[in-house]
Order: sequence, then structure tokens, then C-alpha cells
Amino acid sequence: MEIEKNDRINSLFEFYEPLLTDKQKSYIEQYYGDDYSLGEIAENFEVSRQAVYDNIKRTEKILEGYEAKLHLFNDFRKRNQVADDISNYVSQHYPSDSTLSRLIDQLETTESESD
Amino acid sequence: MEIEKNDRINSLFEFYEPLLTDKQKSYIEQYYGDDYSLGEIAENFEVSRQAVYDNIKRTEKILEGYEAKLHLFNDFRKRNQVADDISNYVSQHYPSDSTLSRLIDQLETTESESD
Repeated sequence: MEIEKNDRINSLFEFYEPLLTDKQKSYIEQYYGDDYSLGEIAENFEVSRQAVYDNIKRTEKILEGYEAKLHLFNDFRKRNQVADDISNYVSQHYPSDSTLSRLIDQLETTESESD
Repeated sequence: MEIEKNDRINSLFEFYEPLLTDKQKSYIEQYYGDDYSLGEIAENFEVSRQAVYDNIKRTEKILEGYEAKLHLFNDFRKRNQVADDISNYVSQHYPSDSTLSRLIDQLETTESESD
């Protein structure tokens, strides 16, 4: 019984963590963030390995459900792509315009503050 | 018994509508979007005026709760401000660079698709 650990869950967790319960957060953090095993998490929380597994699987579905409705992660990636394109174009064509560079930096700062 | 109708609820509704139930959506749409009165909505749905009022007040709290946790509307306004600053700067300093203008348009397109 293995859960495929992946970057996607970590990313979705960054966006939707505020909507999860404390227990859901803890399990996901330990499993996906800190790379604990199901057995170790079960021991930490004094519950069964099955209970941890069920909770994590349920939380993954909840995270994917939020993404299907709000698509924050997908929108974030799209905006980042456009911001990168602008940043690259400006550093190629107007490398000495520090005002424009500063404005574009603000775009990226605003983005990372939104996470 | 009056509810203060305002742009803020309409804005929050744009971001968090997918997280509401069908009934919550309908009441908010009719009250804030279509400017129906509580009495008219009550008649449309064959429920009491008080039931409509309570539902709308509850939904407003839910919307503000989501904003407190995810701050999508606030982040959107911040990003828009930065995008406007870049757009204004570029049209002042590089009015003939159509490639850069196109890239910046993409930024705004991506943003409005995110709503």
C-alpha cells in the first residue's frame, strides 16, 4: 500500500492549506513535506497506519477538488510563465532600464506573496 | 432590516462562487447581482423573507471567511496595480515596441481568465 508522493500535492497544499483542518495539515506536512512513512506518522499521532493512510488519501481528494473549482495552482503557473517572458524580453532589449526592471521585480514579489 | 449592498460582496462572489452551494449562489446573484429585494427573492423561491435574509447574511460571512484565509481578491488587486504600473510605464517609454505591449497584454489576459 503505497501513496505516490509527488510535487503536485505539495504545490496544491501551498495554495489550499488554509482550508484544511489541523489534522489534515499535520499528516500532509509530515508525509509529503518531511517524508515520514505512514508507520512513523501513525506512531507520532498514536493512531493506526490505516487511519493515517485514509486521512491522507481523503485530503489529496479535497486538495484536487479545490483545484478543480478554483484552479489557483494552474493560474499561478500561467501568470508566472507570462511574467518570465516579460522579464526575459526586458533584460534582453532594455538591460539598462532599471526602473522597468524594478517594476517587473514587483510583479514577481507580488506573486510570491500571494502563495 | 436592511443589508448594505456593496461592490465588495460582488467581488468576493466572483472569486469564491465555486465554493458555494446552488442556493447560496442564487440568493447572492439575485440580491447583489440583479438587485432584487429580499421580498422578491422570497417570492421567487417560495420561502420566507427571513430565510432569505439569514441565508444571505450567512453567505456573506462565508465569503469573508474565504477571503480571510485565501485573500484572492486582495492579491488580485495588488497584482493588477503592478500590471497597470508596468503597462503605463511601457506605453510612455516604449510606445512603438509592439512585442512588449503584446507580452503585457498577455499578463492582463491571464489575470482576467483567473477570475
